[in-house]
Amino acid sequence: MSGAEDRAARAALTWLAEPGNRAVWTLVEETGAPAALELLLSGDVPDNRLRGAVSARLAAGDPRRMAEIALRRAERLGARLVVPSDEEWPRRVTDLAGLELDTAGRINFDIRPPLCFWVRGAWPLGEALERSVAIVGARAATGYGVNVTSEMAYAIGRDGWTVLSGGAFGIDAAAHRGALAAGGPTVAVLACGVDRPYPIGNSAMFEQIIETGLLISEWPIGAEPLRHRFLIRNRVIAASTAGTVVVEAAARSGATQTMSRVLALGRPAMVVPGPVTSAMSVGCHEILRSNPFARVVTSAAEVLEEIGHIGEYLAEPPRGPQRRHDHLDEETALVLEALPRKGSVTPEQLAAEARLHLRTVLRRLSLLEVAGLVTRTAEGVSLVPRQVPPDPPAERRTSAVPERSSPVSGQTSSVSEQD
Amino acid sequence: MSGAEDRAARAALTWLAEPGNRAVWTLVEETGAPAALELLLSGDVPDNRLRGAVSARLAAGDPRRMAEIALRRAERLGARLVVPSDEEWPRRVTDLAGLELDTAGRINFDIRPPLCFWVRGAWPLGEALERSVAIVGARAATGYGVNVTSEMAYAIGRDGWTVLSGGAFGIDAAAHRGALAAGGPTVAVLACGVDRPYPIGNSAMFEQIIETGLLISEWPIGAEPLRHRFLIRNRVIAASTAGTVVVEAAARSGATQTMSRVLALGRPAMVVPGPVTSAMSVGCHEILRSNPFARVVTSAAEVLEEIGHIGEYLAEPPRGPQRRHDHLDEETALVLEALPRKGSVTPEQLAAEARLHLRTVLRRLSLLEVAGLVTRTAEGVSLVPRQVPPDPPAERRTSAVPERSSPVSGQTSSVSEQD
Repeated sequence: MSGAEDRAARAALTWLAEPGNRAVWTLVEETGAPAALELLLSGDVPDNRLRGAVSARLAAGDPRRMAEIALRRAERLGARLVVPSDEEWPRRVTDLAGLELDTAGRINFDIRPPLCFWVRGAWPLGEALERSVAIVGARAATGYGVNVTSEMAYAIGRDGWTVLSGGAFGIDAAAHRGALAAGGPTVAVLACGVDRPYPIGNSAMFEQIIETGLLISEWPIGAEPLRHRFLIRNRVIAASTAGTVVVEAAARSGATQTMSRVLALGRPAMVVPGPVTSAMSVGCHEILRSNPFARVVTSAAEVLEEIGHIGEYLAEPPRGPQRRHDHLDEETALVLEALPRKGSVTPEQLAAEARLHLRTVLRRLSLLEVAGLVTRTAEGVSLVPRQVPPDPPAERRTSAVPERSSPVSGQTSSVSEQD
Repeated sequence: MSGAEDRAARAALTWLAEPGNRAVWTLVEETGAPAALELLLSGDVPDNRLRGAVSARLAAGDPRRMAEIALRRAERLGARLVVPSDEEWPRRVTDLAGLELDTAGRINFDIRPPLCFWVRGAWPLGEALERSVAIVGARAATGYGVNVTSEMAYAIGRDGWTVLSGGAFGIDAAAHRGALAAGGPTVAVLACGVDRPYPIGNSAMFEQIIETGLLISEWPIGAEPLRHRFLIRNRVIAASTAGTVVVEAAARSGATQTMSRVLALGRPAMVVPGPVTSAMSVGCHEILRSNPFARVVTSAAEVLEEIGHIGEYLAEPPRGPQRRHDHLDEETALVLEALPRKGSVTPEQLAAEARLHLRTVLRRLSLLEVAGLVTRTAEGVSLVPRQVPPDPPAERRTSAVPERSSPVSGQTSSVSEQD
């Protein structure tokens, strides 16, 4: 099959059946997307429920034609379709392939990986999600929840991590806005077409997100934000990030559902506690009481520490630059190794030497600079000599390779400043 | 040795060295209190530090004489000295004998069981502590902490459990007052003589506690509330209750020290979370983050559920009276078994039949009555027939053998009503 055929078939399949559908995903895995589409259109489907859903959908239009329209509209909008064969496909969502939830209901059964993503924004999707944290929570958030979320997202964004959320009012919006304020990248995962991000009240924010981050959705251009789609969408929030924080959540709400996905995936499930007198913290405490693996977090530093347990962050306080160097992620280490011992080079030379994209090199250099390992001058980039390791600038010392702060001292000041 | 000699020696020993002292306790275990006192007075002590402390103390007076004075003053005050050979000695504090803490410092070394308790109040000490929960926390509590504590202590008190605390301002006082408001028993564990309960600002409350509960202390009549004594006292709070709740605590405070004792003893260590923006909740979140066995609790029902894991409470929702009966504690079961299938008996007859104290029988009958298992009439007490199990009165349905409420639904209403 050609790349274009695969793309068109995936777009059509997503229009035909809701994302995550187990039978559709299995068919695509076995036969490829074009053959799977062919099979569904022929009605030769073993799954009765799926056959019924498909024939109902076929009455509304021809999937191939709808996909064509959606792809054309996407192009006009500056949006793109990302499929698994693309270099920018995010690797983590594949973990949904092996996920089994023993709780009942279709919503816990149809949790397979996305077939494709519709994307608005310039940044490669995989790169945007590689170092990402989800922050989710109640739409009817309290002032407490909004303040804590903004502060946390700001600090996480300033630390070079992508803040991902669902674009909703309340905690979601506070998370996106906090990251935007930090000049950090943010990704909104929608449950409708990226042409009509929902809710409309957040339109100005969505425009800002497109400029520096991404709007993404599994649903084709034009798709409506139907109620059940938010629950389907939540598995992507859980699966595409290094960990998820819930700030405020009502009992048994969308946010607690997202957290159950996070826990099932074995990713860091982080919970911000709140007053036990607040209905908006009941869901948070419920998660803490019912899941031994859910962890209390009270600050961005603690969030990054949790993620560090499975990621690039340090589990122990660093003792010096050589120690930091040892714990850098692979790409950053490549950039560092490509730097000459003496003298300076241009980023372009570094990219060629390290065999990395220039964009990647520039991002990693920023982090290394913040960490005090490299310095930029008019001549180019050079290593900071090891014998005199400069401290990272005080106000950005949690960036890139943070000192692990004491579990207590850091958090109060960072969170309570605004109160 | 005679009982009076043992009592006098224990009183003298407590005047001579701070309670919890490992060397003193070991001597008393090996030789008995009078011989241990003799040994300490003779200066024939292997422990250099102890020998030094004793000789310094001897300069202040004769321990035997001081004990005599203290015992006489206690008698005038209506206070009494309780020693391990007394029937009312609380059984749980003995667990301190086996406790080892690997953190450094004398305060983690001298954690042996009390030698005696000075007690004000009519209730037998062991009975008061048998079904008890400690609620501890910050003196500089917030309105949030005080409200949550009052509500929780009220509900625990109404449920027939003793609320134990340290008599301090803030969370401690809110705990005692909540229990008093419920007409429930409450016990204040002091770090000074029971003749001069500290702080003076709580004097009216202490008077109330003496009327319906107990003031207790390891320190003799006249002892001052020295700073280090509060930390020594905390091990008794941890060891004498079925579990401990911390409501608000600053980082590394007295309350977090108490919780570390609770965790070391393997007792339920329960933490009420709060806003991450509140300095008074930092200690609470610190405990939750650093101790996998610490549990979030948000209501009295959850506290009683946690205690139930090691006590008489049900871990599963009861399905009917026969099921409830199966899970009753031993004394209650004895009372129930002593009741005739038909007809009624007097409490006195029951006590004789069950071989229990009348007081115990009366307490158990109250609980059984609340649970809808027995009924009292003019003729006496009789079993409620099994085929028609009446529901417990709605407003007291968590009493005695509570239905286990959903982890979420109960708490919000019970805690947020006052806000």
